Amino acid sequence: MSLLLKDTENYGNVYIDGGIIAEVGCAAYEADIVIDASNKALVPGFVNTHTHAAMTLFRGYADDLPLRTWLQDYIWPLEAKLTEEDVYWGTKLACLEMIRSGTTAFNDMYWHALASARAVEDMGIRAAISNVFIDVAGESDERDDETVQKENRKLTEKLRSDYSDRIIPALGPHAIYTVSEESLLWTAEFAREKEGDMLIHIHVSETEQEVNDCIERTGMRPVEYLDHIGFLGPNVVAAHCVWLDDREIALLARHDVKVAHNPVSNMKLAVGMAMRYPELRAAGVCISLGTDGCASNNNLDMLETAKFASLAQKAAANEPTMLPAEESLALITKNGADVLRTGGGSITEGGAADLLLIDLLLPEMTPFHNLDSNLVYSAHGGCVDTTICNGVVLMQNRVVPGEAEILRRASEVTYDLVNRE
Amino acid sequence: MSLLLKDTENYGNVYIDGGIIAEVGCAAYEADIVIDASNKALVPGFVNTHTHAAMTLFRGYADDLPLRTWLQDYIWPLEAKLTEEDVYWGTKLACLEMIRSGTTAFNDMYWHALASARAVEDMGIRAAISNVFIDVAGESDERDDETVQKENRKLTEKLRSDYSDRIIPALGPHAIYTVSEESLLWTAEFAREKEGDMLIHIHVSETEQEVNDCIERTGMRPVEYLDHIGFLGPNVVAAHCVWLDDREIALLARHDVKVAHNPVSNMKLAVGMAMRYPELRAAGVCISLGTDGCASNNNLDMLETAKFASLAQKAAANEPTMLPAEESLALITKNGADVLRTGGGSITEGGAADLLLIDLLLPEMTPFHNLDSNLVYSAHGGCVDTTICNGVVLMQNRVVPGEAEILRRASEVTYDLVNRE
Repeated sequence: MSLLLKDTENYGNVYIDGGIIAEVGCAAYEADIVIDASNKALVPGFVNTHTHAAMTLFRGYADDLPLRTWLQDYIWPLEAKLTEEDVYWGTKLACLEMIRSGTTAFNDMYWHALASARAVEDMGIRAAISNVFIDVAGESDERDDETVQKENRKLTEKLRSDYSDRIIPALGPHAIYTVSEESLLWTAEFAREKEGDMLIHIHVSETEQEVNDCIERTGMRPVEYLDHIGFLGPNVVAAHCVWLDDREIALLARHDVKVAHNPVSNMKLAVGMAMRYPELRAAGVCISLGTDGCASNNNLDMLETAKFASLAQKAAANEPTMLPAEESLALITKNGADVLRTGGGSITEGGAADLLLIDLLLPEMTPFHNLDSNLVYSAHGGCVDTTICNGVVLMQNRVVPGEAEILRRASEVTYDLVNRE
Repeated sequence: MSLLLKDTENYGNVYIDGGIIAEVGCAAYEADIVIDASNKALVPGFVNTHTHAAMTLFRGYADDLPLRTWLQDYIWPLEAKLTEEDVYWGTKLACLEMIRSGTTAFNDMYWHALASARAVEDMGIRAAISNVFIDVAGESDERDDETVQKENRKLTEKLRSDYSDRIIPALGPHAIYTVSEESLLWTAEFAREKEGDMLIHIHVSETEQEVNDCIERTGMRPVEYLDHIGFLGPNVVAAHCVWLDDREIALLARHDVKVAHNPVSNMKLAVGMAMRYPELRAAGVCISLGTDGCASNNNLDMLETAKFASLAQKAAANEPTMLPAEESLALITKNGADVLRTGGGSITEGGAADLLLIDLLLPEMTPFHNLDSNLVYSAHGGCVDTTICNGVVLMQNRVVPGEAEILRRASEVTYDLVNRE
């Protein structure tokens, strides 16, 4: 399948073949599909490196509450009742929202992961899929470590055998306070030795409480503890990383751990401070951005997340030059693609054709002094006219096939879920 | 001219006549225009209480710079070359963006105010129009106080005689560090005694520098100084008010001064701290929200501004219950309308028909647990399907008549402006 993007504002003609960017700035070749891209800018698809996609079903269900009340009285009771069908439609709703706001790949961690994989497969985007797991007492779910291992082995096998390459198998140990040391060690070993270099997706140091509890339990801070047990590596995506000291930042850099920063969720849940972006950047850590789930954001719009990231850093540092638009945009394109190893993230011949056409004939894109600034500071995901993943057009002229059914079914399963005994 | 909004999701049928909400939850009366509002929610139009509309022309022209560099090397040199024609098309672009994102009234302060008034009149929304004035040395423009008085008298007269009631005459002394005490006193007197109770729009305590300079010059903090000279009153809209001490908050409350909070601009320019919202609220001050100009935001989307306001307060207070969605939405509807005295801001019989229909068949509005939360935390201005001001439909199904010409002309004048000798 070949595709020609004709007359893009910033790259001229772009020819795509077999899911790959074949030629940039080329002649107007014949192609199976030709898209008139005049008055449109070509940019890489956005990558969301931390979310719980099916939590779209909880959007607006509970906000503005103390953290424990929110989790214990609202989120966990609903999660306990979730079915595969719920997760399937919740993830489809998430994928629809992502396609409409320009996200072509995401890093997911949730319950009933096979249902998520099925939804992503059907919707045509990419995702690293992991089943969240918890095996110590006191949280919403607990299983012994043998069950956890068996389930993860089975899921990984199934994701490899039954799904396309757009589905990236990953492991999802929830956090150090919810997963036993045995399971963390098994995860690290399975990911590296049995599976080569499989992605591990884990929450790290989102709250001060987590840090204090870890110090009390182990005498070490969370990243030190993970280093100590041999968990850290370049395949680890550590979500949040808000509460880090200098030594932990050096450890993340030394092990090439990937950090998924979630500025909107962190501010909404008031976790206590802005992530130490300048120090992480100076240490050479690969930083990317995530939205977190829709219960704590409440959307999946990566351009909004990029704006929050830039502005939160400026405000925290009292310095308007911090995290400029160009850099923020790199976090959601190049860096995100590097983390999930999509092969995309830039407009490069030979790269994966995960691409967007941005409508320039919008007030928020006018005038056209600076594309990066307009994208990060002025526009929202609504400026995306066309979304392409793996060389396939998923949205054109803001129309995604099947949209009405997804909205209807997601609403139906939500209604059923909140009324379920 | 009568208008029937048929089958709104939250109010049933709503009948509008002569610019006024005549009946809510009524029978399906015949009307000159009938709009099918099924699957749409009715909300009051948003009000932006601090902006410099024509600065849309500078959107993305200069970002991520130190404050003085940004002003002295980029913004002021361009502003010095602005013509009436530039301001007209810049303001039209702003109005277009506002209509598309649900703003039906705004508080403007800029150069060539008659051109702004003309643009607002043509576009059909409401605005308080003031000519920014500066009459002390050291800034981009300086005129003596007599000239300032003459110009303001003339502008006020013209705005009253030549324009519809949608244009609200106001006075725009820039700030205490750019306007002489004589002119501040004249402004206060003219607004209250000669003109009844005319709005005064002024920047107050945006930066710490301004506070320190004021203390050095007068021995008082800015709000104390304004109180001391008799400037404060219920007709004063004080933009920013970031750096306030407890005594100043009490003074603002005592004089019923209206505060226009600009969370996005404050974070982007890194003015140094979050506005003391909880203390202002506790003191009973009427707080509303503004975007500030597009050079420091860089859009005019009030739903984004409401999200930033809520999240910035949660983050600043380390408290996720701060400024909940419902309250944030009130800041951009009821409170904003009270500040500009539009007669709108709620869905009330007898109120001004400044109204929006929100499209509920969007991923970001699905599921429908909570309208306020979906609006503030999930959606952007793109969820607005229909915008009505003064009972007149300005946008339906996201189409604003004349949009293409505005984008083209605004781009042309911008190109000319930046290349002008």
